[in-house]
Amino acid sequence: MSEETRTRIIEAGSQLIHLHGFQGTGLKAILDAAEVPKGSFYHYFKSKEDFGLAVIEHYANFTKSIVEPIIEDTTLSTLERFRAIFRAFRAVSEQNKCTRGCLLANLSQEMADLSEPMRELLDGVFNRASAAFADLIREGQQSGEINPDFDADDAADFVFASWHGAMIRMKLHNSLAPLDLFERMIISHFLSA
Amino acid sequence: MSEETRTRIIEAGSQLIHLHGFQGTGLKAILDAAEVPKGSFYHYFKSKEDFGLAVIEHYANFTKSIVEPIIEDTTLSTLERFRAIFRAFRAVSEQNKCTRGCLLANLSQEMADLSEPMRELLDGVFNRASAAFADLIREGQQSGEINPDFDADDAADFVFASWHGAMIRMKLHNSLAPLDLFERMIISHFLSA
Repeated sequence: MSEETRTRIIEAGSQLIHLHGFQGTGLKAILDAAEVPKGSFYHYFKSKEDFGLAVIEHYANFTKSIVEPIIEDTTLSTLERFRAIFRAFRAVSEQNKCTRGCLLANLSQEMADLSEPMRELLDGVFNRASAAFADLIREGQQSGEINPDFDADDAADFVFASWHGAMIRMKLHNSLAPLDLFERMIISHFLSA
Repeated sequence: MSEETRTRIIEAGSQLIHLHGFQGTGLKAILDAAEVPKGSFYHYFKSKEDFGLAVIEHYANFTKSIVEPIIEDTTLSTLERFRAIFRAFRAVSEQNKCTRGCLLANLSQEMADLSEPMRELLDGVFNRASAAFADLIREGQQSGEINPDFDADDAADFVFASWHGAMIRMKLHNSLAPLDLFERMIISHFLSA
């Protein structure tokens, strides 16, 4: 059992699931894409659901690798850091030509009612990401850059959820405009003090 | 070919698709749920995609039947009408015990990249719904109830997209709290003058 092969299956599977959904992606397609012999899937994963959990962890680490360095970059103001985060994911969406959206939001929408382990893991990932946003909002409220009238945790949850709404609209309009609109509305009309 | 049978297939299919997704719902399950003989599907629909378009039209009419009477109720202020719309859909989600979400947003996320006809139809439905929100925002801006600093069309698109983000979070947290948070943030911190 090679860790390298396991990672290759997860990466190839993530690509397919991102485009076709979890239920729309068969094991055979995943193994073909990963160039792994048919039948070896269960050497690496207990079940398709177990594989889904690994995909979530994998993509959560990818998003964290984008967000964390920006949040820690205190040469930027808090609003500048929010803008940099939104633009980093906008760049990913531009590369994907406005398809796919956020894999974790897609899996939330598709699987929350169908797999309790996936729902729980996604919920935890989103709660941790939202907590990082909340810290940034609190910092901006203290520095006077961000509106002090709302609770930082509430505002963070709202911003984060709204972002996923904007990602759906991006796919639907086949355009980055909904992400730009989101940035403008959140920065200028919601967060700014 | 009976119109009544066609409607029964659409209604039964909508229920299944709402829970399991479009790709996760097989024709056999739809016909079983509608109690229609196996094999008769293609008397009513050219393809599964054609059926998907009929489901979108059907659900769009359902949402319109909720939204339109509220928008036309000029005994309510513009913000009261927004609140009434949000609460009407909250009540639907409460009935569904925080599962399912918005069928049209689900189909957008699942199918926008996979079916151009479904993407186009959903895009049109969302644009029309957003235009109705924009009219309401303009009315509120004129009456002084809604913040005049943003463009009404932009604000409507943002509010509508954010709502769908809140619906994803509702499924994920298994709670109506994200819808309540959305209402509070949109009404008190975004729309209010």
